[in-house]
Formats: sequence, structure tokens, C-alpha cells
Amino acid sequence: MLIKKNTFELLRENKTRGISFSDMEGVDHLAHERNKAGFDVEHMKIVWAGSRHAFDLSDRISRLVASDPVFRKDDRTMLGRKELFKNTLRKAAHAWKRINDLRLTEEEGYKLRFFVDQPAFTDLHWGMFVPAIKGSGTDEQQQKWLPLAYKMQIIGCYAQTELGHGSNVQGLETTATFDPATNEFVIHSPTLTSSKWWPGGLGKISTHAVVYARLITNGQEHGVHGFIVQLRSLDDHSPLPGVTVGDIGMKFGSGAYNSMDNGVLRFDNVRIPRNQMLMRFSQVTREGKFVHSSVPRQLVYGTMVYVRKTIVSDASTALSRAVCIATRYSAVRRQFGSQNGGIETQVIDYKTQQARLFPLLASAYAFRFVGEWLNWLYTDVTQRLQANDYSTLAEAHACTAGLKSLTTSVTADGIEECRKLCGGHGYLNSSGLPELFAVYVPACTYEGDNYVLLLQVARHLMKTVSQLGSGNKPSGTTAYLGQVKQLLQYRSDVQKAEDWLEPNAVLKAFEARAAWLSVACAENLSKFTNPEEGFQALSADLAEVAVAHCQLIVVSKFLEKLQQDIPGKGVKQQLQVLCGVYALFLLHKHLGDFLSAGCITPKQGSLANEQLRSLYSQVRPNAIALVDAFNYTDHYLGSVLGRYDGNVYPKLYEEAWKDPLNESIVPDGFHEYVQPILKQQLRNARL
Amino acid sequence: MLIKKNTFELLRENKTRGISFSDMEGVDHLAHERNKAGFDVEHMKIVWAGSRHAFDLSDRISRLVASDPVFRKDDRTMLGRKELFKNTLRKAAHAWKRINDLRLTEEEGYKLRFFVDQPAFTDLHWGMFVPAIKGSGTDEQQQKWLPLAYKMQIIGCYAQTELGHGSNVQGLETTATFDPATNEFVIHSPTLTSSKWWPGGLGKISTHAVVYARLITNGQEHGVHGFIVQLRSLDDHSPLPGVTVGDIGMKFGSGAYNSMDNGVLRFDNVRIPRNQMLMRFSQVTREGKFVHSSVPRQLVYGTMVYVRKTIVSDASTALSRAVCIATRYSAVRRQFGSQNGGIETQVIDYKTQQARLFPLLASAYAFRFVGEWLNWLYTDVTQRLQANDYSTLAEAHACTAGLKSLTTSVTADGIEECRKLCGGHGYLNSSGLPELFAVYVPACTYEGDNYVLLLQVARHLMKTVSQLGSGNKPSGTTAYLGQVKQLLQYRSDVQKAEDWLEPNAVLKAFEARAAWLSVACAENLSKFTNPEEGFQALSADLAEVAVAHCQLIVVSKFLEKLQQDIPGKGVKQQLQVLCGVYALFLLHKHLGDFLSAGCITPKQGSLANEQLRSLYSQVRPNAIALVDAFNYTDHYLGSVLGRYDGNVYPKLYEEAWKDPLNESIVPDGFHEYVQPILKQQLRNARL
Repeated sequence: MLIKKNTFELLRENKTRGISFSDMEGVDHLAHERNKAGFDVEHMKIVWAGSRHAFDLSDRISRLVASDPVFRKDDRTMLGRKELFKNTLRKAAHAWKRINDLRLTEEEGYKLRFFVDQPAFTDLHWGMFVPAIKGSGTDEQQQKWLPLAYKMQIIGCYAQTELGHGSNVQGLETTATFDPATNEFVIHSPTLTSSKWWPGGLGKISTHAVVYARLITNGQEHGVHGFIVQLRSLDDHSPLPGVTVGDIGMKFGSGAYNSMDNGVLRFDNVRIPRNQMLMRFSQVTREGKFVHSSVPRQLVYGTMVYVRKTIVSDASTALSRAVCIATRYSAVRRQFGSQNGGIETQVIDYKTQQARLFPLLASAYAFRFVGEWLNWLYTDVTQRLQANDYSTLAEAHACTAGLKSLTTSVTADGIEECRKLCGGHGYLNSSGLPELFAVYVPACTYEGDNYVLLLQVARHLMKTVSQLGSGNKPSGTTAYLGQVKQLLQYRSDVQKAEDWLEPNAVLKAFEARAAWLSVACAENLSKFTNPEEGFQALSADLAEVAVAHCQLIVVSKFLEKLQQDIPGKGVKQQLQVLCGVYALFLLHKHLGDFLSAGCITPKQGSLANEQLRSLYSQVRPNAIALVDAFNYTDHYLGSVLGRYDGNVYPKLYEEAWKDPLNESIVPDGFHEYVQPILKQQLRNARL
Repeated sequence: MLIKKNTFELLRENKTRGISFSDMEGVDHLAHERNKAGFDVEHMKIVWAGSRHAFDLSDRISRLVASDPVFRKDDRTMLGRKELFKNTLRKAAHAWKRINDLRLTEEEGYKLRFFVDQPAFTDLHWGMFVPAIKGSGTDEQQQKWLPLAYKMQIIGCYAQTELGHGSNVQGLETTATFDPATNEFVIHSPTLTSSKWWPGGLGKISTHAVVYARLITNGQEHGVHGFIVQLRSLDDHSPLPGVTVGDIGMKFGSGAYNSMDNGVLRFDNVRIPRNQMLMRFSQVTREGKFVHSSVPRQLVYGTMVYVRKTIVSDASTALSRAVCIATRYSAVRRQFGSQNGGIETQVIDYKTQQARLFPLLASAYAFRFVGEWLNWLYTDVTQRLQANDYSTLAEAHACTAGLKSLTTSVTADGIEECRKLCGGHGYLNSSGLPELFAVYVPACTYEGDNYVLLLQVARHLMKTVSQLGSGNKPSGTTAYLGQVKQLLQYRSDVQKAEDWLEPNAVLKAFEARAAWLSVACAENLSKFTNPEEGFQALSADLAEVAVAHCQLIVVSKFLEKLQQDIPGKGVKQQLQVLCGVYALFLLHKHLGDFLSAGCITPKQGSLANEQLRSLYSQVRPNAIALVDAFNYTDHYLGSVLGRYDGNVYPKLYEEAWKDPLNESIVPDGFHEYVQPILKQQLRNARL
């Protein structure tokens, strides 16, 4: 018996006092909040998007996706694994069709898949398989494989990680042994732990993979290389002989990454032609000789910079979605504080709420701008690489690695904090936050575990510090270490809270703290006779050094952004406030560093906290407009709590009735398992 | 076509080099780790359990549950909502049957439900409905309702929270209006936001509820009271007239709390007899007169102390589960560090891993002991209440509220940190960690939002500080504030790293920090003319004051535990190490507080960090034994990564094939949505 419609209809007709459905429909319940904003939201939207072009593109494509019923996702977390996967295939096919029908450009096509917002095998095909061939294939290989991939006549994935091997690529066990007799490579999984494990798209869909394996020719190993391997028949999609392939099972959350067929793959002596080794950087000749090509291997690092700068942009997007939901709902939700039975206080007016929410809002903006800067950095590095200038590569690589680590960690924690800021209702899937969290957290692990990356940054910093004496001038984001002597002696001259609004007061304090931590760690390291042992022993401290350095980068890029000409009434002022929130929040959080460095006094730390409180009050009236500036559609946000119109409660109520359990009044299993208890017949019942 | 068995069988027969299944079965792969332990694990198990009796009970019942196939839970995250719910009803019925068949005591029955480890309607029946009647019902009411509830001839839930009202119980909107004409209460939901929302067991199962509503008699409101209301027919389980009831929809995670029917409930003028108001504390007479009984209302706070001390114990349990999984897997997992192609380093040997994992291990123990102490506190408070002594109630209430907040926040974050410490595989449901996280996090919100609770603690602290001058001697956990003058002048005399092993060095530093924060905040508060305004403005700082106070309690109770006689070789020494880890980790994390307070110098802070590193090295060889001491069965842990025998990889592989997607080689939807792309037929295909 269906209960859904009845109950809902009944409630609609409920003509009682207080909030009823009819009162609330078609009204902008956050209009009074939007009216408070002291800046031009339309201009802020352009700033957030990065350019007018980028804004128009996102605006147009996100609406296109939102208006298409095939792309609905409100029932996603209720689907079983098979249903969800089928739904994903449907969406991917529809996306491909729309892209072709509307003759979308590559950029538009990317945006469309982005706003469909459901992890799919196509992500890996376009994001990893195609770039791997472009990056590591010879011209000849590109000419053969790319047209097939562009038309999706083959679908590929990126098979690197193994069951026993993640971060340490050089430890991969899969082998590719050259057989000169047949001019083939034999791809083989010698152990259980060598099973490929995790590649997205591999489990059920990919026809091909770029497989990373230890190259062996003439009994000699030559490190790990990529090979194009066909996995499944293009006729009936069955795995080719010697190929064992399947899905690795369900992952964190409902919906989330369960739409993706992360896979397991084993090879039992599978043979591929010699020309399917990706040979841009090194080759195996017909005779089985291993030779390096003239193409510099450093180009590989360019690719890593590319992937990681994209992850930083994605971090600002994910964090801003969570912040948008939590901010809007915090303005809708009321609790306590009513006088004489009157209306209660909006929770966004509580200082504890502000002190948790606004730093995340500021972080979303901060990460946006550092992501923009990373785009510039990537272009710069690429141009230099093309001119055989590798001088900035190490620094750029360390800096993107560090920012990837910092921004994804903060974003993962931030999404969960936003969920908690929504109180109990944030725990409902209809809030959108549980799925956003579950789908986001792997970013802390993939493309470099965040702690492994921090140690790479720290290694770069320690090297930079150790070379200070030898006249090697630090460059790029480590340039401040050139003034290390001055920074170690720096003493802030802040005397009153507002002095912390001075960009230089903030910048110098962050530089002094980062420099002091680097130098203190370098000194501790120097006490070890074996430097590598020292690095291992002090690695927890070194990770903190790296974090301080990366936070400095974000703060300084935010400050640089504010030096640009930013049009629009009040826009720049808002960003100044957010920059202050970002920096002073961190200063308060890491006060121990700043005090230990001696660059500020406890009194100055307390003044920073005072100024931070004042900045929160300045954010408050602008909060809704600041999240409106992200310009997310309700479809993309996917959250009842974050609805643009703030009409939260009727929609929460409406969503509830869609749950499968509400399809019948008496649930499956009741007569079998509950009624016998109530009727005291349980002892006789068979369970 | 089924792929499962084939592939698995094939792999078993795969006689290649390296790890194969047959090599790994029936072996204790962590035996070499267990041999390293320098203490008596069996004695530590008793310490963890609290007593020999508690250990035996848990050991026996957990094995009983683990050996019963009905209680299997390895497929739980793959079940759709309806299947999962039915499975829960089956388990609940089976648990009830086992409890009756085996004539288990109340304590044993509780443990059995605990180890079944699946949220169910029975949790609320036993944990909230029965206690509500016991706590707030008159003797007569208890005599009528409790026998029915004990036999489960009725099943109840606890309907307090509403769609628009959580923490602020006094803001509830549901009304209970006395009608003297019929001697009945009319229970009504006047608005949408007054819909009861969240009560567990309500959605599909409960026959009755204790409903909290604003009492109205003779047109006058008398605050919020509890009423026993029947919701569903005992014949056919259909909702009674005027009752609208359903499930509120899916929640965070796969499995997790989706086994619970959290519900929505609306009343359209539902009538109940006058004697179904819970009248222990106040009554409505036949004439409609509202009168207070002679029973003191403070008893209600006793109940809150009870509920929250239970939550603290549960926190240590949940955190220890996550830590057990992460610790064992960290000893199995190897990455990097191989010399000349040899075996790689166990990740547990990395200092970054230790610096993240061991403080959580120490926290699990710390929370266990503070939970034990809360048991004592509860007994003490209860005995005093019975003797009409309310003198310690406010302090006990604040202290349990604060510890609930602190331990649940740390545990929620700690479970997620443990998941990240397991690298990519922690993201698989078969790791057990995603579900553990999803099922745990609501503890931060229910029974008092963690930030609301911190502010209650802060209020108590500010009151205590403000009364210091007036001769009111602070007692219990605030006793240290009696020495506030000395503490503000306290300067640590630590001179070398090992000095931080001195219990008094740690305790005084934590006291001085907490006292300084309280006094500094009180001073800031005194600058406001309106104290309430000041409290609001400074609430973010006040929350930090409360955290510092609660951390001090945990540290001091851990130190007190160490003063007891603890038998077993090396057991006390291990606990001393863990206590040091707990305290010094916090000192490092909150260094800014300690430096601002002036109780330690930057140099002393750095020495504390040095000592912390040394303690990590002492934990390392004992780590596996320290988590073995929790004595969890593999069933209860529910994690492939946390298996006792460390045989992780073959089991991960085995689990993967159980995914529904692996039931067929070609997935549902492939022919419809993917093949047309590969065959370039998409443009003609209908989607």
C-alpha cells in the first residue's frame, strides 16, 4: 500500500498555524539576507569564476545539465550498486550524445561532464588514458591510438596502483618481459600483491589500459614503464585470454564513488606487440636493447604539476559547495535565543558558528586564488620546459605537491565540519553533505598521499636551507628564505588589533614563522650523522614545516590577488576581509609556532584573535551573497539544506517520503520478525 | 554468467612466485609483532575491560555473537535500504530469541545487542523508552507500562526532537492540550516544523512513543512534558487515526544508521487519556490544574549524566576499533624504503604514521579510564541525589557534558584519521572504517551538540571563576581553580626532555594553561556591560577554554589511574608511556595556549616534543599487543585490514568478488549505453 502521496497531500491541506507548504512556495526566503550584502555580487561571480568567459561557460553549461531530467541525481544515494552503475552508464552516454549533438567544444564537453557530477569511467578515459598516451607515446603511437580514443571507439583506463603498491611506483611488481622471438612483451602478474587494484573504469568498462610494469629485456630490469594493453574483446566485451578483471567492491558512502568501477586486474602471461610500449622517453629495439630517447624525462614532472594544480582547483570547488550549503542553512535554521516565545536566533548569528564556518568560506576563496596562480605557474613551467629550461621545475613541483596536500586535507575536513554545522539534518543524505564528503576524501590519498607529499616539500625546503650559504639564491615560493637572517630576527610591531589588517604585518609574520620552523628543523637534522636517518626521525616535525610553508604561499597569493585591479562595488573590500579571516584564523590555530619563532608576542596573538572576531562580524551580513557568488545551481549543489530559496523544511519533508521504506506502511520483515515478539510467539517462530 | 568462483579458484591454483593464497592461510602474520611486546597482554585485557568480570562477559558474549551466522555483517554495506532494514529486524528478533533461550541476564542481553553491532529499533526501546518511563513515570505508571515494555508486548521510542527544533527543548512546538470535558490530552502538531523528526525506531516499528509536548491547560502553557502515546495498531500495525508516521530517509554511509528507522511523526488532534502524561515530577489534576510533585526535578540531570557517561565509554570503544584496524594494517602494509629490491618498510615504522596513530591509541586508553571514572562519578551523584544532596550535581553535569563533547569529537575525527592511515584501501567498505565513521559521527550531534555542550562547560567555569573571591571553594574537577593565583604564576622547571615524564610537570602545566585561559576569558568578559552579550561575543574563545578544562580532566584521571596498583608484567609502564603520549601530544598541539599562559617556555615546548618522539619509539614494539588488548573478535571489528591474523591481501581480493557488479562479466546497461558508443551507433540510439 502506498503512503507517499496521501500523506503529502494531506499535509498540504493542513490549514494550521505556523509554517505550511503553501506559505513557503515560490518565495525567496533568503531575500532579506541577500539585501544585506554590501557588495556587487555579479562582479564577485566573475572574480570567483576567474573571467567573464569562464563565468559564462559555467553558467550556461550548469543550467543545461540542471534542466535535463536524465541528469537528475536526487535519488542517487538510494540506488543499489547495480542500479547506480547502470544509471552512471546512462548518464555518460547521454553526456556524450549531448556533447556531440550540440557540437560542444572540448572545454564545454569537460564542463558538461563536470556538472553531471557523478564519477564515471569517462573521467579516467579523458583524464588519464588519453593524457598518458599524449604524454608518453611517440608521434606514431599518438597517431594510431588517439583518434580511436577521441571517438571512444576504445575506452581506456590507467592501471598503475597495485594491491600491494601505491605511492611507491618503483615498487610495482607487474612485469613486462620482452620476447625477441616474437617481438612481443609478456605482461604478467607474478604475485597476488601485484594485482592492479583501484584503477577507475577498469572494473567493468575499459577495453584498454595503460599498464605500468617493470620492463625486463635480456634478463635485465629497466624500471617501470607504460604499456597499452587491450583487456576486453571489442566484440562481446569479454576479458581477453589471460586477463582476469573485476570490480574491487563498494566504497565509502551511498552513491559517491560507487558509480565508478574501480577495478582489479591480473595478467597471466598476456602478450602484446612491442610497439605498444609507450616509447616517447625510452625504447626497446627489435633486438631487445633498452635505449633512452632524447626526450627529457623531466617532462613527466610537468604532467604531475598539471594533475595536481587541477586537484587544487577542485578542492576550492568542493569546499565552496559545502560552505554554500552550510551558510545558507545556517541562515535558515533558528535555535535558542527567543525572547518571550518570539522567533529564535538564526544560527549563523552565533559566534561559535561563525568561527567555524567563516574560516572555511575564506579558505574556499583562498584556494580559488592560489589555484588561479597555479594555472599561471603551470603555463610558465610548460613554456620553460619547451625551451629546455628546467631551472624552476623542482620548485614548481614541490609547491604544487604541497598545495595539493594542504588544500585537499583542509577541504576534506572542511566538508565534514560543514556537515556538523548543519546539526542533525546534515546527517541526512538529502543534505548532500554525506555524499560530498564520501566522494571527496580520496583526494587526500590519490595522486600522492598527503603526508608523503608534505615530506617531499620538506625535503625541498631542507635542501634550500642547506644551500643558503653556498650562494644558491632561493627562488619562487621559497624566495623568502633568502632573507632568513632578517626573518629570524623579525619582531612584529603590531600594537592594536587593527594593525593586523596591514598586509605586511600578516605576510612578515607568516614568513618569519615558516623560516624559523625550517631553520629549527634543519638544525635538528644537522645533529644526525646520517642525514636520511635524521629525516626519518624528524619527519613529523618536517611535515609541520611543510604545512607552514604552504600556508604562507596561500596567504601571499591571496595578498597578491588583492593588489590587482578588482572592479565592482565593495568586491575588493570583501576579499580583504576574507583574506584577513584566512590568515588570522591560521595564526590563532598555529599560535605556538609564531610564539616559538618569537616573531609575535602573546599580546599580539591575542590582538590578532580580537581582530578576527571583528572580521567575522563584517563577513556576517555578506555571507549569503558570498556563497551566491559561486553561482551553483540547486542541481549541482544537490542539497535540500543549501537550496537557493531557503525553502528547506517542506522539501526535507517531501524528500523523506521518497525513501523505499515508505513504499509500504508495514515494512518487509515485520510480520516475520517483529509481530511474533509483540504477540509473544517468538519462541515458536523459526528465524 | 557468474565469474566469482571461477576467478577465485583460478587464482588459488596460480602457482607463481611470491604471495599466493595457500602460503597465507592459517598463519599468524603478525606473530613476529606480538613477540616484540614487552608486557603481559592478558593482564592489559583485564585493565582495558575494567575488571575480570567485565572481561569474561565481553569475551564470552562477543564470541557467541561472532559464531552465529545470523549475525554476519560482511555483506551489510551492499544491501539496499529495504533489505538492510529487513536484515536488522531479523537480527533483532534473533537477539531477543537468544537472550530468552539462553536466559541471559540484563547485563548479558545488553552486551549481546552491543556486539550484534547494528543500530536497531531495540536500541531506543531499551535505551530511551524504558528509561523515560522509569525516570519520569509515577509508580502506578511504571507498574502499568514497564511489564509490557520488558516483554516487548509494546515497542517504544523517544519522540523529542522536531524538524525545526533540536538542542532547544524548550522551543518544541508540539502541543498537549488538556480537555477537562473528556479527561484527555489532545496531542497536536500545529506546524510543519513541529513534526517529530529523527526518533529512532519511530519510522516503521514503534507501537508507542514517549512524546514531548508543550502542556496547555486552561489556556495556559506549562512547559514541555512527556506523554505516552500509542502510534500504531497492535492488530495490524497501521498508524492510528490522526497519526502520520514514516521514515525520514537515508543517512550518511552504506549500512551504518540506515538499519535504523529514524522517523517523522505528525499528530492531528490525537487524544490520549490523562493518565498517560508522565507525572512523576508534575501532574495535571482531573480538573485541569497543573501541580508540581514533591519529587525534585534535579533528578532529570542525573539521567543526563548517565546517558553522557555511556557516550564517553562508547567513544573509547569506537576509537579503539578504528585504532586496532589501523595499527594492525600499518604493520602489514609495506611501502618504500626497500634496499636493492628487498622487502619494503612496514608503514608503522614511519614517524609520520606513528605521530598520527599513536596519539589516537593513547586517546582510546585515556577515554577508557576517564569513562571508568565517570562511572564512579555517576554512582556518587546518584547516591547523593537519593540523600537530597545536590551540591555536586552542577559540577558533575558540566563535567560529563564536556567530556561527552571532547571524546566524541576526537573519536569522530580519529576514526577518519585511521581510515586515511590505511591509505587507499581504507576507502573500501571491506576495511570497515567507512561504516564505522558514518555510524559514529552523529554522536557529535545527538544528546547535546558538541559546541552547545562546550559552552555549558564554559558557563560553569566562568561562574566558578567569578565566585572565587566570594569564598565559594571550587570542587571536583574545578578544584584546581582554587589555586588560581599560584597557577597563573606557575613556571615549569623542566630542563631536559625526560623531565616531561614527571607526572607533576605535566599536570601543573595543564592546570596552569586551563586556569590562565579561564581567567583571561573572564577578564575579557568583564569588559562587557551586558554579560550575556559578552558571553555571545566571546563564545568561540569560551569553547576553547572548555576544551582545555576537559583535556585537563582526562590527563589528570589518566595520572590517577597510574597511581593505582596495576598487576601484570610491564602493564603499568606501557600505560605510563601512553599517558605521556596523550599529554605531550596535546601540549604540542595547543602549544600556543601554554606559551601564552607563560607556564612553559618555547624551549620547554620543544623538549616536550623531543620526549614525545622518544615515547613513540617506546610504543612501536608494543603497538600490536596494545590493540590486541581490546580483545575484539574479527566479527566485531568487521574489517579485512584489521584481521587478527594480518592475512589482509588474499581476503581483500576475496571480498572484492562478492560485489554485485561482479555477478556478471558484462554489466547491466553495457549493451544499452556503452556498446553503441564503441560501435559509433550512439547518435541513433535512444537513451
